[in-house]
Amino acid sequence: MGLKHPGRRGFLKRGAAIAGLAVGGGVRIADAQTPSPAAPAKSIKELVAYGERSRFVTSTRIPVSDRPSPDSFGLVFHVATPIAEQVGAITPSSLHYVATHLGSFVPDIDPKEHRLMIHGMVDRPLTFTMEDLKRFPSVTRLHFVECIGNSGRPGAKTVQESHGLTSCSEWTGVLLSTLLKECGVKSGASWIVAEGAEEVKGASSVQLSKAMDDCLVCYGQNGEPVRPQQGYPLRLLVPGFEGIFQTKYLRRIKVVDRYYMTFNDYGHLQEDPKVSALMNQIGPKSVILTPSGGQQLPGKGFYEVSGLAWSGGGAVKRVEITADGGKTWKDAVIQGTAYRMAHVRFVMPWMWDGGECELQSRCTDELGQVQPSRAQVAKYWNKPLTAAFRVPGTNNSIQPWVVKNDGSVVNGLV
Amino acid sequence: MGLKHPGRRGFLKRGAAIAGLAVGGGVRIADAQTPSPAAPAKSIKELVAYGERSRFVTSTRIPVSDRPSPDSFGLVFHVATPIAEQVGAITPSSLHYVATHLGSFVPDIDPKEHRLMIHGMVDRPLTFTMEDLKRFPSVTRLHFVECIGNSGRPGAKTVQESHGLTSCSEWTGVLLSTLLKECGVKSGASWIVAEGAEEVKGASSVQLSKAMDDCLVCYGQNGEPVRPQQGYPLRLLVPGFEGIFQTKYLRRIKVVDRYYMTFNDYGHLQEDPKVSALMNQIGPKSVILTPSGGQQLPGKGFYEVSGLAWSGGGAVKRVEITADGGKTWKDAVIQGTAYRMAHVRFVMPWMWDGGECELQSRCTDELGQVQPSRAQVAKYWNKPLTAAFRVPGTNNSIQPWVVKNDGSVVNGLV
Repeated sequence: MGLKHPGRRGFLKRGAAIAGLAVGGGVRIADAQTPSPAAPAKSIKELVAYGERSRFVTSTRIPVSDRPSPDSFGLVFHVATPIAEQVGAITPSSLHYVATHLGSFVPDIDPKEHRLMIHGMVDRPLTFTMEDLKRFPSVTRLHFVECIGNSGRPGAKTVQESHGLTSCSEWTGVLLSTLLKECGVKSGASWIVAEGAEEVKGASSVQLSKAMDDCLVCYGQNGEPVRPQQGYPLRLLVPGFEGIFQTKYLRRIKVVDRYYMTFNDYGHLQEDPKVSALMNQIGPKSVILTPSGGQQLPGKGFYEVSGLAWSGGGAVKRVEITADGGKTWKDAVIQGTAYRMAHVRFVMPWMWDGGECELQSRCTDELGQVQPSRAQVAKYWNKPLTAAFRVPGTNNSIQPWVVKNDGSVVNGLV
Repeated sequence: MGLKHPGRRGFLKRGAAIAGLAVGGGVRIADAQTPSPAAPAKSIKELVAYGERSRFVTSTRIPVSDRPSPDSFGLVFHVATPIAEQVGAITPSSLHYVATHLGSFVPDIDPKEHRLMIHGMVDRPLTFTMEDLKRFPSVTRLHFVECIGNSGRPGAKTVQESHGLTSCSEWTGVLLSTLLKECGVKSGASWIVAEGAEEVKGASSVQLSKAMDDCLVCYGQNGEPVRPQQGYPLRLLVPGFEGIFQTKYLRRIKVVDRYYMTFNDYGHLQEDPKVSALMNQIGPKSVILTPSGGQQLPGKGFYEVSGLAWSGGGAVKRVEITADGGKTWKDAVIQGTAYRMAHVRFVMPWMWDGGECELQSRCTDELGQVQPSRAQVAKYWNKPLTAAFRVPGTNNSIQPWVVKNDGSVVNGLV
């Protein structure tokens, strides 16, 4: 048939870029076929019901460096997702970051026994079973969940340590507004308090306007029921807000007319409720995952710079990358649809000339908010940066990675 | 603050629809709070590294009814995904359907040892390691994989039995065109033969035009490395084509000038290559998952009809639903972005009046192709429908589900 492709040998003809990889990067001239693996280890029959990952895939979640999990009191528990190894936009459910406070166990809830009660300032208080909830109109949306403490700690060597407390899933459930309308919200109501079945109840106050806008009562995560560490059987999703608002094991929502102080509010105790409300939303943020801290570039030549971007303010509109420490910026390509309050993957081709350089990424969201530099955030936060959880809002500043002459990559923040 | 929501008590005021659910469907007036679970079963510490699903979530894959897996020869292996329990558009990796032929084991491949060789009619035959492949520009795309035998078998009681041989993942990898250009395709080449490291090598012939268009060499699936049952460490994705072309454990691609017969071509043995080429693409297809065969509606009132639609011809453009056996059709809502050659979730509110009725869904894709009725397909296939694998193309006909007076749901095809 003799098809002739205009792009034939395109990369080679275009010269050094990819051809440089082919020759310099270890690609070999084909000489022999890969042999079949010697002895298969597992009968396929063993894996019929529910598959597993390969024994050669070993990336795992790790405790956050300065917070032993569980800590000496068995109370605080933070584990970071291996974000550097992740591909695409969705975090595998088994590797979603986990944060709990004063609750050292995962509640083991029988969904048949679980109930969600909605009461307070409503015309008709109601209690829903899981089966009830699944009969309501459903929505499926990609949303990130991020801990306020993410990237707030100094001394991170890898991006898992610096940015591993954010994850993104395909969440399925009922709009909270659907349930609130079912109960009939009374005039004068202005806040909700959402409570979970954790030891400390995981209660959070959320503005009624946000509750009626886009909050989700989720029973599904990445196609399956919500995972136990993410709130099985039911979790509140408050898109774009700090992780602490995403109440797990959701069992009660009280409609009220004021901001309620709860144990979980320790990060917001001294705030005015209105100021607090504005500060709950995570700003535009991005981070380069390859190359990133602790990785080793085998030699100069072609690389793809790749990372994740997100914003609590809406969809990511633009991601720019600098490879010269901020002198010049280039637009990265955003892969797939940039959903509101969701991770998106960005990529950019890059030729490394072998010299020391600094890589940064900068996110702009659909509101026009631009990710700030570390200096800008430090000024705003008035230091110390080390106590991220004592100041409102997560640290969404730009993360610099320095590529050394020897190909090693280190954190550009000292 | 006294916010007043225009939608306040909206569903109740709109009358019977949702209010019917609230009262008739088991929702109770709130009286008592759900108690905290008695004794937590597992310490959270046990689950730090890699999370698990709840012990209360038990849906699993099942062997396809008329094909014991493994069969008496230990050769054929087909397991269907629990598609009725799935939410959203993405199939959990652990539950992705599996089909293999004359290969009863999952190859246990060390990625450090794995190579992909591209040779044949190329200027420069090359061998790539996994590390090499990860340095090339990457893409992440949502694509379905469907077995030609899906929904081809009669007597299915549930949608897992009838339609469980299709799954959808977020795939990450390198465009095959990138690699072919790297090798330089010689003029006169018109086909590729892709071979995997299975016992039967899982070889397939694919048109070079398709290979250069949108085929992917995948190392990532749903954020993680490709799962072993899906081809770890490397799988070819031929978007929209029958499952058998999606070569797992990909180790060799030969560029050739003709259609090669391979063991895997048993379904196409007697075909003209050109005709075969046209028939490899899966047609527009959809299926209702709730309500579906084997489910039980607790009583009349509000339900959400929900299902999945896809097409090998491109993106899903429209899904219509009939609740009266085809007399009248209404447009369903498509959730999120309808990507090309990917599952999309569709939903439609529905009031069941308690009488016997027949539900069907009908997909139209961006090419304008419309999912045919069973009668149309039967005519085209010239019977028997029972031997799906002897005729070209998958059976993409409309699946009817009959809701009986007692709320039971049965397959409308006898």
